[in-house]
Amino acid sequence: MSSHVIDMVMLRNVFGTPEMRAVWSDENRLQKHLDVEAALALAEAELGLIPADAAKVIAEKARVELLDLQAIADEVLKAKHSLMPTIRALQALCGPEAGEYVHFGATTQDIVDTGMMLQLKEAHAIIVRDLSAVARQLARLAREYRDTPIAGRSHGMQGLPTTFGFKIAVVLSEVLRHLDRLKEAEARVFTGVIGGAVGTYAAFGPLGPEVEALALRKLGLHAPDICWHSSRDRQAEYIGILGMISATLGKLGNEFYNLMRTEIDELEEPFTSGKIGSSTMPHKRNPAALEGTASLAKPVRYNVALVQEAMIVEHERDAMSWRGEWIALPETCIYLSAQLSSTKAVLEGLVVKPENMRRNLDRLGGLLLSERVMFALADRLGKQTAHHVIYELSMKAVEENTPFKDVLLADKRVAEALDEKTLEELLDPAAYLGSAPQIVDRVLARAEQSPWLRED
Amino acid sequence: MSSHVIDMVMLRNVFGTPEMRAVWSDENRLQKHLDVEAALALAEAELGLIPADAAKVIAEKARVELLDLQAIADEVLKAKHSLMPTIRALQALCGPEAGEYVHFGATTQDIVDTGMMLQLKEAHAIIVRDLSAVARQLARLAREYRDTPIAGRSHGMQGLPTTFGFKIAVVLSEVLRHLDRLKEAEARVFTGVIGGAVGTYAAFGPLGPEVEALALRKLGLHAPDICWHSSRDRQAEYIGILGMISATLGKLGNEFYNLMRTEIDELEEPFTSGKIGSSTMPHKRNPAALEGTASLAKPVRYNVALVQEAMIVEHERDAMSWRGEWIALPETCIYLSAQLSSTKAVLEGLVVKPENMRRNLDRLGGLLLSERVMFALADRLGKQTAHHVIYELSMKAVEENTPFKDVLLADKRVAEALDEKTLEELLDPAAYLGSAPQIVDRVLARAEQSPWLRED
Amino acid sequence: MSSHVIDMVMLRNVFGTPEMRAVWSDENRLQKHLDVEAALALAEAELGLIPADAAKVIAEKARVELLDLQAIADEVLKAKHSLMPTIRALQALCGPEAGEYVHFGATTQDIVDTGMMLQLKEAHAIIVRDLSAVARQLARLAREYRDTPIAGRSHGMQGLPTTFGFKIAVVLSEVLRHLDRLKEAEARVFTGVIGGAVGTYAAFGPLGPEVEALALRKLGLHAPDICWHSSRDRQAEYIGILGMISATLGKLGNEFYNLMRTEIDELEEPFTSGKIGSSTMPHKRNPAALEGTASLAKPVRYNVALVQEAMIVEHERDAMSWRGEWIALPETCIYLSAQLSSTKAVLEGLVVKPENMRRNLDRLGGLLLSERVMFALADRLGKQTAHHVIYELSMKAVEENTPFKDVLLADKRVAEALDEKTLEELLDPAAYLGSAPQIVDRVLARAEQSPWLRED
Amino acid sequence: MSSHVIDMVMLRNVFGTPEMRAVWSDENRLQKHLDVEAALALAEAELGLIPADAAKVIAEKARVELLDLQAIADEVLKAKHSLMPTIRALQALCGPEAGEYVHFGATTQDIVDTGMMLQLKEAHAIIVRDLSAVARQLARLAREYRDTPIAGRSHGMQGLPTTFGFKIAVVLSEVLRHLDRLKEAEARVFTGVIGGAVGTYAAFGPLGPEVEALALRKLGLHAPDICWHSSRDRQAEYIGILGMISATLGKLGNEFYNLMRTEIDELEEPFTSGKIGSSTMPHKRNPAALEGTASLAKPVRYNVALVQEAMIVEHERDAMSWRGEWIALPETCIYLSAQLSSTKAVLEGLVVKPENMRRNLDRLGGLLLSERVMFALADRLGKQTAHHVIYELSMKAVEENTPFKDVLLADKRVAEALDEKTLEELLDPAAYLGSAPQIVDRVLARAEQSPWLRED
Repeated sequence: MSSHVIDMVMLRNVFGTPEMRAVWSDENRLQKHLDVEAALALAEAELGLIPADAAKVIAEKARVELLDLQAIADEVLKAKHSLMPTIRALQALCGPEAGEYVHFGATTQDIVDTGMMLQLKEAHAIIVRDLSAVARQLARLAREYRDTPIAGRSHGMQGLPTTFGFKIAVVLSEVLRHLDRLKEAEARVFTGVIGGAVGTYAAFGPLGPEVEALALRKLGLHAPDICWHSSRDRQAEYIGILGMISATLGKLGNEFYNLMRTEIDELEEPFTSGKIGSSTMPHKRNPAALEGTASLAKPVRYNVALVQEAMIVEHERDAMSWRGEWIALPETCIYLSAQLSSTKAVLEGLVVKPENMRRNLDRLGGLLLSERVMFALADRLGKQTAHHVIYELSMKAVEENTPFKDVLLADKRVAEALDEKTLEELLDPAAYLGSAPQIVDRVLARAEQSPWLRED
Repeated sequence: MSSHVIDMVMLRNVFGTPEMRAVWSDENRLQKHLDVEAALALAEAELGLIPADAAKVIAEKARVELLDLQAIADEVLKAKHSLMPTIRALQALCGPEAGEYVHFGATTQDIVDTGMMLQLKEAHAIIVRDLSAVARQLARLAREYRDTPIAGRSHGMQGLPTTFGFKIAVVLSEVLRHLDRLKEAEARVFTGVIGGAVGTYAAFGPLGPEVEALALRKLGLHAPDICWHSSRDRQAEYIGILGMISATLGKLGNEFYNLMRTEIDELEEPFTSGKIGSSTMPHKRNPAALEGTASLAKPVRYNVALVQEAMIVEHERDAMSWRGEWIALPETCIYLSAQLSSTKAVLEGLVVKPENMRRNLDRLGGLLLSERVMFALADRLGKQTAHHVIYELSMKAVEENTPFKDVLLADKRVAEALDEKTLEELLDPAAYLGSAPQIVDRVLARAEQSPWLRED
Repeated sequence: MSSHVIDMVMLRNVFGTPEMRAVWSDENRLQKHLDVEAALALAEAELGLIPADAAKVIAEKARVELLDLQAIADEVLKAKHSLMPTIRALQALCGPEAGEYVHFGATTQDIVDTGMMLQLKEAHAIIVRDLSAVARQLARLAREYRDTPIAGRSHGMQGLPTTFGFKIAVVLSEVLRHLDRLKEAEARVFTGVIGGAVGTYAAFGPLGPEVEALALRKLGLHAPDICWHSSRDRQAEYIGILGMISATLGKLGNEFYNLMRTEIDELEEPFTSGKIGSSTMPHKRNPAALEGTASLAKPVRYNVALVQEAMIVEHERDAMSWRGEWIALPETCIYLSAQLSSTKAVLEGLVVKPENMRRNLDRLGGLLLSERVMFALADRLGKQTAHHVIYELSMKAVEENTPFKDVLLADKRVAEALDEKTLEELLDPAAYLGSAPQIVDRVLARAEQSPWLRED
Repeated sequence: MSSHVIDMVMLRNVFGTPEMRAVWSDENRLQKHLDVEAALALAEAELGLIPADAAKVIAEKARVELLDLQAIADEVLKAKHSLMPTIRALQALCGPEAGEYVHFGATTQDIVDTGMMLQLKEAHAIIVRDLSAVARQLARLAREYRDTPIAGRSHGMQGLPTTFGFKIAVVLSEVLRHLDRLKEAEARVFTGVIGGAVGTYAAFGPLGPEVEALALRKLGLHAPDICWHSSRDRQAEYIGILGMISATLGKLGNEFYNLMRTEIDELEEPFTSGKIGSSTMPHKRNPAALEGTASLAKPVRYNVALVQEAMIVEHERDAMSWRGEWIALPETCIYLSAQLSSTKAVLEGLVVKPENMRRNLDRLGGLLLSERVMFALADRLGKQTAHHVIYELSMKAVEENTPFKDVLLADKRVAEALDEKTLEELLDPAAYLGSAPQIVDRVLARAEQSPWLRED
């Protein structure tokens, strides 16, 4: 029986992927705690702090499948301590001799924080992989629709033509920056900590810093310059980046949702057989995946703030700030996993309707090209006068519901400057795409330089 | 395997209670959907829209234990529709004849929204019960410590004496207002909806409003004046109140945490045998329960904003706003359940240390009563002059680390106005409690009027 | 020189109204502090605590125009105290005798908190007035377009027909609930406090509670049952309601923005002469007012959380929680004032385009009525079979881009059940509005009962 | 008359600095718009798109002091357009000939977005300067108090000794990471955009990309690879970093506030003559500056989420997302400016009380060293047994309020293992500082490598 959307049998696959859930599961969290205890023991043995035999036993026994998770959980409730029962269970497994050396010199937060970082690093690998895949799909679409005219819209209203590939390239550019950010963060974020009770290594003796460095190296994490039990900026930085990625995917989902509206109909999310739109309206084909992607940016955004709030720790540590991280880190990674996998699937199967894009471009009867006619007129009348004339005639076309071309030709100032043929050419949306295709190429070239995109 | 703190075996009992988790479980959610389908069928039969026999079968079969939740969940994934598989499973159970009348005229959102309201109402009963229990404990403590002097503190610094009962009564007063708010909200919030595809009852024919009213009456919910598929203010209102309750409990947790500090030591949360403070510092007795209560106000607060954001629905409905509710309603109720049960336990077993309160009151060597001496002096010197004199002497006492009384007596202006005995009386903190005890009585009297508190 | 959008000459009128800014101005804030000092002095005189003459002088001098705001502000910076310089300036104005009785027995927070409540109450009057005006406009539109068919849309896709009046009535119903909430909150929220340093009335002597009650009565505020320096739930409750109102207006702005899209074009916000859509696209008529209304719900929503966070006060008070209120209360009221006045103007001048609503209804070639045909068919084939048949034919019509009617007639199962004429009638959107018009009447009737709407 | 705390005469200097307010003022915003128009004209002239003479005139006239800001603001209201009146005023200044070439080919958002980036870059210079100054002060304190013992505390309870310098070094390390983040962000964030109506450079002809690159180079901004009118991640990234800096300062303010509590009294914020603690309690010295710093992290945190929300732009742009930035960017920079300047002043004048730190260390009668005794005992009894024994004796000391040493000596197991002299040494807090001083050195060495800290 589960009660959160992330775990509920009925909903969990809409809010996350099984793979990312596994990273943040009870089992994996416990395994990570055991991994840290094992690495600590091995490092301590190597440095002569504890017997090598004890470390060997500890490392062998530190496997989640040897422990009874439910029994530990029951103890947690009794002891009101989240780690001690795990330590005791591991000690029991190791026997009286080796058991004495479990958790030697460390404090709870060392294990829990370092374990969480190991989980975050696993999540990171999935995120990088999936965001790279999304970037590749975006690159494919940008290339394929590099020259396909579509209405550029501002304020929900058609403005000027652009190309569908250009629209996609804008998103690709954003994703490339996110990949850069993830890369830069790697060196800073994935850092463990084994500093003892208040971070001074007091219980380790003078070898403390070396114990920490060695144990963390074994775990594939960086060593900190000073204890970060009360410095939580690394998590805040990382979740901040995930928040931006989630916002980009949310924006994309919302954009496609709008382009799929009945009245616009320029795109459609992949329709799989068996999918049902509505329990009562048989004709409905809903943008279900797009809405999912769009909506998950919202809870993620609040998590960014919650994790920044968790930076406010009192003294050498408290248990008030953690909870924010324990909630928000898994949530954010899991919601993002759903957004990423769904976006990837949508992009792979996206139904693009260039003919409808063109149909919409023609809807305003040429008004969409008002800027272009204005610039053509500007050579004769000056730009401000041209703006004035065109503004007046645009409003007239709208008010009287007359094709823009007819209104233009009926105006003496225009007719003197431009003949009908020229005007028709000026009003062709496909011929006023500016540098859109070239800019697509520029972004694609940048994508090819992106390290993670080159990899495969 | 669970991945959210609300469901994780190792953590879930720190973040919620089993009882509240059960309200928001997969099973109960599905049962509520079935309850709505059953009530709908029975109402329709009563109004002659569907055969009475069919309704009877539907009502009998609408029980979660007759369905295969996992199989439905698998279908949900395939159909990309969150309710249709449930309907189909219920139809299959009911057989071909009665099955035809399952979900007759309704739309998915009718079932899902009304089901959610049924869950919220169950949660409400628990919250009212537990908040009332907290109020009763607060009333007991306010009464018991009505006259116990304690330092009043502002800006973390001791100001003037107050009583511990008074401090508690401030919180009690806040809780009483929350109970009033919950009461007022009941009439508005717990409202179902069965309006059909776009809320016009089109598929029910002219009897639509009656079907809705009757079905909802059977479910113990109010009927709306108009479809609220796209009006989500009721949930926002309710979660807003829960957010305030959570903040009050968070404040109390934080307050007690501060009063339990090593250097203040005026309170202690109940210490149960077996509880462990630290894996490495054996002497530690941590305010674990208090920190838990304090910390859970944070995620709840963001949920308040998330549910207000969910009020922004497009058109007759979308699937982007819901998710905020599906996430935030269960989370908020569950986190709050942990805060309530933990606060209740803390209050029941609270260790109050009046002797330490008194010790702290004496720490400033009388400075705490500077206001009182000032007022005594004001009769002679005028209030502003008195403030000036006392300010000067207070600073002197602080700078020179001399008892305030000595500094006062050494000052001619003071010595002329007040003799030593008077001064000693003036500097007795227990004799400068103002109307604190009487105000405690006033709040207790109000508590006795509170309907839910009288009940048992 | 101003630096916040609320005060910047270039932007302030887009983010607030002059009237609401005046409520929260430096001058009005200072006046409210003076009002509280005056009421306190008068009450104290009436109860014999200070000389009547002194109170008279204080009340006469307590006027912002007699003080030098800039000079006080300079002192505030030096004293690092936000009220003391005001008290001193008032004392100086009152002369040495009366001056001694200024602020007698009160503490800073008494004055500042009570003053803020007076401002909030002024803001409340504006909000009630403007929200009532919005409700009246909504009622007018709901009545006027009670029967005007428009596509009901879910997930951005056309679903079933509804009426424009029905859509408006859904919003009206929401606004009516907000008015109820504001009414209920009045009795609880607008409460002052004059409790002295730690709320025990110590400096007032035994008459403390009477001083507070009398002074607050003079100010038109309720008296609290206990000091609320550290209980900030009233503000949180009120801002929570404003947040919901802001969300409703934001939803309406967003809805109209979408209905104004070039490709939908069912509405237009009032276009005033001189308005410019774009600096470079002369034909643009942008939904500027609607976007403004939609966007301001966002900052307000975070303010709701910020004010709930401000409930976490330490001890008898701190200066960390206030700032949240000082920021969020004015901001929220001011942003909301812009939303309200803009929404009112938009509703008054709204251009409704019933012909385009109808045109859009016809766009799907009858598919929009698939539910209706399904129900007609259900009488013959059973509901589930009918859903199956209609689902299949709907998809066919979409895939092959063929009018739904033709696909239906070509199907034997349908053709046997329904003749062409019946089918044509079934496919008429204006004839499938359910109870929409009757429900509009029901909401309008409720509006007529709403106290604030009856008033004028 | 101002109404927001950022601009109110009475409050603005508590919520920001004059220098940072000037960056975000009406005047500077307008000047930046003019700077962009000037750079655009000069670039266009250089590339032969407009006459060189016209560009020269435009560049000369583009000065805020030549314009009437109030008149432009009045026009903004009429035109419902935020930039057009500025363009017109500049055209009027330039005369009919040059005026025609103002804003040639650009769109409003080009000017407004690029102008905002120029402001953000100015803010950045201040932030880097002030954060570096804070870092230097932290380094000074870390060095000075490298060896000064203080109680390390977790969960508000004393744990083990550490040094005050170590505590400061933890914060310094965090600040150093922020400086790294700011450095990395520079290359990505400070990027302008001049792409025309929908970002395709259509109105510039094929030279568009060159116009943009040249104009932005003149402005000291990077050129984008593609138009970012609808890509707002740069702002989100930057505000995310500011949010983390604000949280660090907030944490520091909160930490010092706690260490300044009457009962702890290990620190005091600088007390300036004339400062008043309380209007009614003359002895009060409040941590006013610390509370200010602590509190301003809260509104900033929500702004981080608001700016991430502003990333959700529709189509080529909308006016719903901007407002979030227009509100949150200035607010965040201004609140942070107050935090930075206040923190700098607090650190410079901080009163550190090593004798009180020591007094507090002794308060627990040796219990604070329980871990150390446990480890000493562990050599004899094994670590787990030692934990068990020490836990039992610690609880006994607490329950019976007996000095820990006496309880230890009275226990046979302990007495056999450790003699009284050894025990006394073990219980000396100043002798159990672990590697704290060495780690301080390590962080200081890193600080010396930080580019911005070396600069002066």
